[in-house]
Amino acid sequence: MRLSELSERSGVSTATIKYYLREGLLAPGRRISATTAEYDESHLRRLRLVRALIQAGRVPVATAKEILGHVDDESLGRTIRLGAALWALPQEPEPDERDPAVQSARHEVDRLLESLGWESARELSTLSPVHRSLVSAVATLIRLGYAWDAELMAPYAQLMHQAAVRDLDFLEKHPSEEEKVETAVAAAILFEPVLKALHRLAQEEESARRYGIE
Amino acid sequence: MRLSELSERSGVSTATIKYYLREGLLAPGRRISATTAEYDESHLRRLRLVRALIQAGRVPVATAKEILGHVDDESLGRTIRLGAALWALPQEPEPDERDPAVQSARHEVDRLLESLGWESARELSTLSPVHRSLVSAVATLIRLGYAWDAELMAPYAQLMHQAAVRDLDFLEKHPSEEEKVETAVAAAILFEPVLKALHRLAQEEESARRYGIE
Repeated sequence: MRLSELSERSGVSTATIKYYLREGLLAPGRRISATTAEYDESHLRRLRLVRALIQAGRVPVATAKEILGHVDDESLGRTIRLGAALWALPQEPEPDERDPAVQSARHEVDRLLESLGWESARELSTLSPVHRSLVSAVATLIRLGYAWDAELMAPYAQLMHQAAVRDLDFLEKHPSEEEKVETAVAAAILFEPVLKALHRLAQEEESARRYGIE
Repeated sequence: MRLSELSERSGVSTATIKYYLREGLLAPGRRISATTAEYDESHLRRLRLVRALIQAGRVPVATAKEILGHVDDESLGRTIRLGAALWALPQEPEPDERDPAVQSARHEVDRLLESLGWESARELSTLSPVHRSLVSAVATLIRLGYAWDAELMAPYAQLMHQAAVRDLDFLEKHPSEEEKVETAVAAAILFEPVLKALHRLAQEEESARRYGIE
């Protein structure tokens, strides 16, 4: 398809598409003459992801470029390729290791992962910022004087693991590695807010079932 | 306990506690002389929640005051009291009803809730901003060209319902209505980031189990 059709089908203006091409967020089309290029479904898909990153995820252009670089990096194994793309997304602030709450949190997270048998997550912990995000979130809880109860937490982790199994089953339906990673990034930005809203809505539903509405 | 002890046990400076007292975020202590007042465990608990709201939740003082007003409102039934406190937390931006993506999203959310049998959530939808947050999050997905698949979504909603059952079981362990609502607010601010990090970590674990690490 031509640029005009790509614009129409994606809902992104031709000026913006040209800007994405210039910034390297979108691969150039196949040149068919000095002034025209031909685009395909992969451009449309990539454009959708760029919009998700920039518009919904409020990711800066440089970060979007970094993420897409990982999406396209065929030298990586699937776990690291998925990871690298997701790890470049904005994360929780780094935990301050001098803070005693961070030290307790790190200990608690280690114990939790051990009790769950999440060996790979522990192994990835030096590489992945997700582990640090969890430590950071738990440290905030502890710092503000709330108790951390590992036994209470394990069943939640197991529910999240059931969600992750579904996530990956869904990814596997996508034919190419590139599409799998693209989908994982889009899901992190677009689906996590859906999940959070579903959780809060489920709390309302459950509260109303137990205590009525009035 | 005296103000100095309240400060020490909460880790909040006396100047900040005095500011919270002046702003009505904390109930006055029991006067025991012209210059001293006595504080109890309920003050300590409330102070912890105020810090969670303001420091971790980045909630403005006026909003914190509104939330605490609902926490203390004994005239409300439990569902609405829990709801009102949580509904005052910052939410997703309101959906724009003129946007066709919002209309499709509303339709999809209705169908999902119907298929799940979440009658109360539907009934509460005019009152609760959570329903609108879900519509908003789904609309963003649709607007950016991603498909919404109700059949794919239902199992995630059921996982979130299992989490909600645990959430409410945990609340019920707290003796007073006030503590229940306080805990629900603290959990929304402090526990949701933990759950999100657990979800991402579970994805890494599952990916490494299926595809190895390298």
